[in-house]
Amino acid sequence: MIPKTINPDLQKERNAASFNSEDFALWFHGGEEKLKFKTMIESYVYDDMNEDSKRFQNLSHEDIYTTTIKDFIRLAKKLRKLQEELNPGGNEIWPTVLIDPILSGAIPAGNPFAVHFAMVVDCIRKQGTDEQFEKFGKPSQELQISGAYAQTELGHGTNLRALETRADFDRKTDEFVLNTPTLSSYKWWPGGLGHSATFCIVAANLYIDGNPKGVAMFLVPLRDRETHMPLPGIDIGDIGKRMGFAGVNNGYLGLKNVRIPRTNMLMRNAKVHRDGSFEESPAAVLTYFTMVYARCFIVRNIALMLSQSATIATRYSAVRRQSPINPKQPEPQIMDHVTQQKKLFPEIANSVAYKLASDKLYQLYEQTSEEIKRGEFGSLPEMHVLSCAMKVLCSKTTMAGAETLRLACGGHGYLASSNLGYLYADASASCTYEGENTVLLLQVARFLMKSYRQALEGKPVLPSVNYLQEAVRQKYAPKWMGSWENMVEILQFTAANKTRLAYENLTARLKAGQSTGEANNNTGIELSQAAELHGVAFVTRTFLEEVTGTKAQQRNKALNKVLENLLELFLLTNVLQYMNEILRVIQISDGELRVLQSRLENVLKALRPDAVAICDGFDHHDQNLRSTLGSYDGNVYERIFAEAKEGPLNKKPVPDVIFSHMKPFIQSKL
Amino acid sequence: MIPKTINPDLQKERNAASFNSEDFALWFHGGEEKLKFKTMIESYVYDDMNEDSKRFQNLSHEDIYTTTIKDFIRLAKKLRKLQEELNPGGNEIWPTVLIDPILSGAIPAGNPFAVHFAMVVDCIRKQGTDEQFEKFGKPSQELQISGAYAQTELGHGTNLRALETRADFDRKTDEFVLNTPTLSSYKWWPGGLGHSATFCIVAANLYIDGNPKGVAMFLVPLRDRETHMPLPGIDIGDIGKRMGFAGVNNGYLGLKNVRIPRTNMLMRNAKVHRDGSFEESPAAVLTYFTMVYARCFIVRNIALMLSQSATIATRYSAVRRQSPINPKQPEPQIMDHVTQQKKLFPEIANSVAYKLASDKLYQLYEQTSEEIKRGEFGSLPEMHVLSCAMKVLCSKTTMAGAETLRLACGGHGYLASSNLGYLYADASASCTYEGENTVLLLQVARFLMKSYRQALEGKPVLPSVNYLQEAVRQKYAPKWMGSWENMVEILQFTAANKTRLAYENLTARLKAGQSTGEANNNTGIELSQAAELHGVAFVTRTFLEEVTGTKAQQRNKALNKVLENLLELFLLTNVLQYMNEILRVIQISDGELRVLQSRLENVLKALRPDAVAICDGFDHHDQNLRSTLGSYDGNVYERIFAEAKEGPLNKKPVPDVIFSHMKPFIQSKL
Repeated sequence: MIPKTINPDLQKERNAASFNSEDFALWFHGGEEKLKFKTMIESYVYDDMNEDSKRFQNLSHEDIYTTTIKDFIRLAKKLRKLQEELNPGGNEIWPTVLIDPILSGAIPAGNPFAVHFAMVVDCIRKQGTDEQFEKFGKPSQELQISGAYAQTELGHGTNLRALETRADFDRKTDEFVLNTPTLSSYKWWPGGLGHSATFCIVAANLYIDGNPKGVAMFLVPLRDRETHMPLPGIDIGDIGKRMGFAGVNNGYLGLKNVRIPRTNMLMRNAKVHRDGSFEESPAAVLTYFTMVYARCFIVRNIALMLSQSATIATRYSAVRRQSPINPKQPEPQIMDHVTQQKKLFPEIANSVAYKLASDKLYQLYEQTSEEIKRGEFGSLPEMHVLSCAMKVLCSKTTMAGAETLRLACGGHGYLASSNLGYLYADASASCTYEGENTVLLLQVARFLMKSYRQALEGKPVLPSVNYLQEAVRQKYAPKWMGSWENMVEILQFTAANKTRLAYENLTARLKAGQSTGEANNNTGIELSQAAELHGVAFVTRTFLEEVTGTKAQQRNKALNKVLENLLELFLLTNVLQYMNEILRVIQISDGELRVLQSRLENVLKALRPDAVAICDGFDHHDQNLRSTLGSYDGNVYERIFAEAKEGPLNKKPVPDVIFSHMKPFIQSKL
Repeated sequence: MIPKTINPDLQKERNAASFNSEDFALWFHGGEEKLKFKTMIESYVYDDMNEDSKRFQNLSHEDIYTTTIKDFIRLAKKLRKLQEELNPGGNEIWPTVLIDPILSGAIPAGNPFAVHFAMVVDCIRKQGTDEQFEKFGKPSQELQISGAYAQTELGHGTNLRALETRADFDRKTDEFVLNTPTLSSYKWWPGGLGHSATFCIVAANLYIDGNPKGVAMFLVPLRDRETHMPLPGIDIGDIGKRMGFAGVNNGYLGLKNVRIPRTNMLMRNAKVHRDGSFEESPAAVLTYFTMVYARCFIVRNIALMLSQSATIATRYSAVRRQSPINPKQPEPQIMDHVTQQKKLFPEIANSVAYKLASDKLYQLYEQTSEEIKRGEFGSLPEMHVLSCAMKVLCSKTTMAGAETLRLACGGHGYLASSNLGYLYADASASCTYEGENTVLLLQVARFLMKSYRQALEGKPVLPSVNYLQEAVRQKYAPKWMGSWENMVEILQFTAANKTRLAYENLTARLKAGQSTGEANNNTGIELSQAAELHGVAFVTRTFLEEVTGTKAQQRNKALNKVLENLLELFLLTNVLQYMNEILRVIQISDGELRVLQSRLENVLKALRPDAVAICDGFDHHDQNLRSTLGSYDGNVYERIFAEAKEGPLNKKPVPDVIFSHMKPFIQSKL
């Protein structure tokens, strides 16, 4: 039913591209070796995968969980086997790629062990002692045991100090006694906690002799290793259906006098000794370093998700024909409509921009990790702030982009089989998990306020906010020139100006007698806008450096031309988006604004012939896109039709309920 | 488990409000009689409704359909009975309120007969002859037969002329022969078409002797009235799961030489006579008047949906406590955070603004309908344009608002039991159905271009674009004064200016030799922005008139003060949103911009004590909100917890798949 051939409209696009999409893929995926490895893994996992197993949307909540565990085990087995075959004793395949987003198509309803591999193991390594890693981390790496990361409570989120879960040290037995004393202190949300995990890292307020010592992390066994039954004092289950991540088995956890040995507190940093004495962490913020890592991980994954949505919508827009441009001609590919280009191409540019930002973020994270190992904690606050700003901007951009792209596919984007709704739902979740976006922006803003004060006082500031100092010093606004460097500079200046405005209003409120808390709250709108612009300055600068820096000279010219077009579009989009802020501080004439509009229209036109090839260069496997609209061959209508025909409601021509309920109702009136 | 008492934080809000929420409800719902009727219907339908039946999210796609039909029949029976009891022979209850959004909580997965009652019956009445209404319309009103409205095809959407479905007149048998000759011409999407409808209105290109006569509507029987089996030549079924409307049973339809009598073409306007002669419609656009009605209906419903989301998020924000403002004090209600107010209150204002706009739209629709009955078609184009602009703006605003409000509830907004995700998914669909938003904006823009040319030439324009003429005449931009009237005037002037810019660029392109089609396409971005601003001018003007006009003097002062605050916020939000466009034509000093920011912060503060009471005034029944976060009593955590505990995955402590798949995998490595 589905042709084996490529849709001719799509083939035409590929033939006409100005560059080689394989060159793009090599660049995008970090070189030949990495791309080869990726392709090998994908082909190994996906080639014999049954098409049927990729749809879960028709199943009940219960069946989705069952299917998900089966999908996961199938994948785990394959990867363990491949590791054994290719490099016994290594870990580059098993378990490493289990949580690589390139394999999310193998567990389409979400991976209930993703948090286990992405956060729990890392948390034990970084916050546990070597003995703890030996005892809990190593078996976790092999999935002999599996953990959840339980921090959020039913009534408590980002403000960790308010957690109600408590761990009291019992001197006599050398144990901690854990309790969730209220309904609102039930742990809520952890992925895999419901029925999958066998143990849990619990964030709780530590008490010794009734005195609070701050939040610490505890390893808490949840289920009997033989029977998998909840252990005594453990009230545990699934929190119910959510917008997305249907198979992730998010759970709740109540603790009633649950006892664990003292040595189950993660004690690389803060420690409780046998005699009950408490040793503080050398840097309190270390407790949250796992979340910094989690944010880096998130930014990378969601930037990739955006490129998936972009691929689906772009391919569909090459195949779909609608609304004549010239009334006498046949309906064009919808990608020929400039309004459609305006929906698609900025999201392609965003996909690239945030991929580059996440690479940079990872690089800084590695540096910071090395410093921490050496006992240096100076970069931590900046790393924390940057990870917050990027998590916010990237999740916000990806969510909005996923939605724009879904809507760009008209009605068909609303079909579950397009997968665009699920990509949206997944991206949307990232706006609230690992720190609600507004709360994070306000944390970033606090750092900006501190830095701005330092800059005003002529003191040195950290590298990521150097531009504040420049803005303070130079006094005069830069002139609008329109070059890329100039646009980035102007966005930075605008960011600095928003920081200045917020700072002035904040200090005015303090002078007027408001408390710090009140003044901060009352300035909240401008503070969060300043923080957002700080992030924009970072992303635009990173993109500019990649495309115009020394690396550009080593790059194939045709490829770099495409990247230049994407940079041009990205900068224009951002400048136009923040134009209301820019115009407050920079003079731009109406003529120059008209030029900007022309540049926008021109770069859309320039990208038009390359759009499909760029998406090919993102190199997403069909089984990972799992979209009737976005497959490589472009046989859109055939796939939509085939999928509908196979739907469960179409197994019978007449549903039973018509005779049991509908007909009797109608006849009762006759 | 769930307390019978009101959450004290919520009660505190109610006690502190500056006005009576019942006064608001009376105003919002159009007076005492209407509100009383609404309350009576709600109590009759919901009071004995089982709480369990409101959750469908855990069911399979198939079971959702079954449950939905059962829910529908239960509701239909009740309403038919009530009509019989209170006013036999009337129709104000049965079937009228079956599709009233106040009862959507009774069919939570969506009503598969909504299109039947909302569009099909009306279409037969307005486009069919009296005999056709007698034969198809009357039994439809009583649901003896049920119809779908089949226009969109798998490969064809808003551009109706390109529909591939054809109806050929067969002179010999006095019949039409209907065919969907290709895969892409399969009818796709109609609500209720899958398995529920027994007949269908099919939009098809009419051919007589092989000559095309344009699109016409045909009544096509689909299923045997006894067996409910598809009739010969009919290939029909469900199109599969979608993001929302899980129970609406959207369907596909293939037609192969399906014969219907000539008299099954809807012939109030265009006609085919027995001899095969074709009589054109007196106004071609009449064919689409059903869609104008549908858009008015949509605007009313989605504006109400936005007020539902706002109610849920606002009540939750009064109950939830998080993140201290002053570090030494307990966590405040999150509604005390100014950033949270900035998320909630503008959506409350939007709910009111679009409710007023939809009232105005209905009023104009009634006028136009009367004119059409008198054979006057002069208002039709303007009515069409206004319905398009309002459908676009209202759907876009509601979708974005629903999402903002969902995110304002943090993680808990992501729970299916919050209902916020479903409200979002429903709103989102309205951005593409009954005319994809961008396509509609471009239709609006075409009207604007024509009107602007007329204004330039000194010719009269239609009332809704009078402001273009004023903008052309007055030459100088209005000064920024900051009053409400001034803000509306400035938004109108900005709209006119955007229309001017688009017009200038369009004509420049035409002069440079581009065809009309090309020039329109290349100006598409500015055209759609101009159209959007045209809509904004209408909504802001309508709101202003309601709050400051003569009606305000008859209104309770405390109530009008609240409406004034909402107007102030609505105008500020719109002015700030379009500031980049405004600053191109209006000089506003930095000082004045700071004043705007202060006004925004002040009006948020002014609305803070009234927010819960306003939402109470929207008067949504708990069973209609069906949200663990938004119930009237505010027992949020208890409801979330109860709902989770009852989830299907929690029936057993250990899922079977742990033993069948998980354990063997782990043990195979031991």
